[in-house]
Amino acid sequence: MKSKITDFKLEPLTDPSFVQTSLARYEQEGTTKTWEIVKAHDSVAILLYHTEKNVFILVKQFRPAVYLNNQNGETVELCAGIVDKDLPLVQIAVEEIEEECGYSVPLDAIERVTLFYTSVGFAGSKQTLYYAEVDEKMKVSEGGGVEGEEIEVVELPVERMDDFIFDESIAKTPGLMFAFMWWRQRRKSEDFTT
Amino acid sequence: MKSKITDFKLEPLTDPSFVQTSLARYEQEGTTKTWEIVKAHDSVAILLYHTEKNVFILVKQFRPAVYLNNQNGETVELCAGIVDKDLPLVQIAVEEIEEECGYSVPLDAIERVTLFYTSVGFAGSKQTLYYAEVDEKMKVSEGGGVEGEEIEVVELPVERMDDFIFDESIAKTPGLMFAFMWWRQRRKSEDFTT
Repeated sequence: MKSKITDFKLEPLTDPSFVQTSLARYEQEGTTKTWEIVKAHDSVAILLYHTEKNVFILVKQFRPAVYLNNQNGETVELCAGIVDKDLPLVQIAVEEIEEECGYSVPLDAIERVTLFYTSVGFAGSKQTLYYAEVDEKMKVSEGGGVEGEEIEVVELPVERMDDFIFDESIAKTPGLMFAFMWWRQRRKSEDFTT
Repeated sequence: MKSKITDFKLEPLTDPSFVQTSLARYEQEGTTKTWEIVKAHDSVAILLYHTEKNVFILVKQFRPAVYLNNQNGETVELCAGIVDKDLPLVQIAVEEIEEECGYSVPLDAIERVTLFYTSVGFAGSKQTLYYAEVDEKMKVSEGGGVEGEEIEVVELPVERMDDFIFDESIAKTPGLMFAFMWWRQRRKSEDFTT
């Protein structure tokens, strides 16, 4: 683990900026119902494939919320960022790729894959998934994030994809697991057509 | 949409049972950091494949948290449930399959696929994914959930999987999208070995 974590504690959250809870009250089929919900930011995530190295570029970081569930707290994720700026989503994706992973990717090289909703039982945040291919010419820094983010860039060889997906000792998201499957399916369909 | 929703409003959540927010404070590499987090329940989800009909059995329901993001609020999901009982996870899976979808599946017919973490940026809830095959002999009710849950059971023909995954007008989770991809990959590898 890159970052040593000590003195972890939970305090009351009195003035949230990122996780707003509410009680939703509504009528469904004439019955009044309530449901506890969290409004969090929408986000973008980008599957990055390095064409020369034949690796995926991922990010490893300490996630306080995961730490509560798993006494490690480190996740391996797609490059991603919350939508907290009034910019086109693809522009936020470009910025996150450079900040977190150190690659400068032109806007028109970013492909939109799809979107989905996470933790629908209580949160329902929307994540838009993108795909981009990078190479060494696009490398402009070591990445690692901004403002004290301790993000480690990880290169995962394509042939290790399945081992990675089913290695439960690595905390990861279903969005990343889907993105890998999507990538392989497309690669196979290209093999058939070329 | 099955259920008409009216009079939707948000109220302050003063005494939460399902979404507990906290401010995490910790030391990382000698720097004190804080992060807003939500502790929600872990969950199980089950990909159900009906062998005689060649369909996936899914559930459609109104999700108040998704409604905030999408003026429909209806999702199509894997059969799933939160872990709020002191029972083996697979037992909770069996109960959810019967309550939501109306099939009585023996414990030993439930296969564990993997686990992952959702909304790691703020929640990090753990979801364990299972797989089960069902048939008409196992059908014991219409499903639909318990205690006023308005769950609609949906049968998705296997050949419509790709259209479904990329149909953004259907709100869905990346866990479902991954499960479909997993199922197809396994089916193909079985085709090669049989």
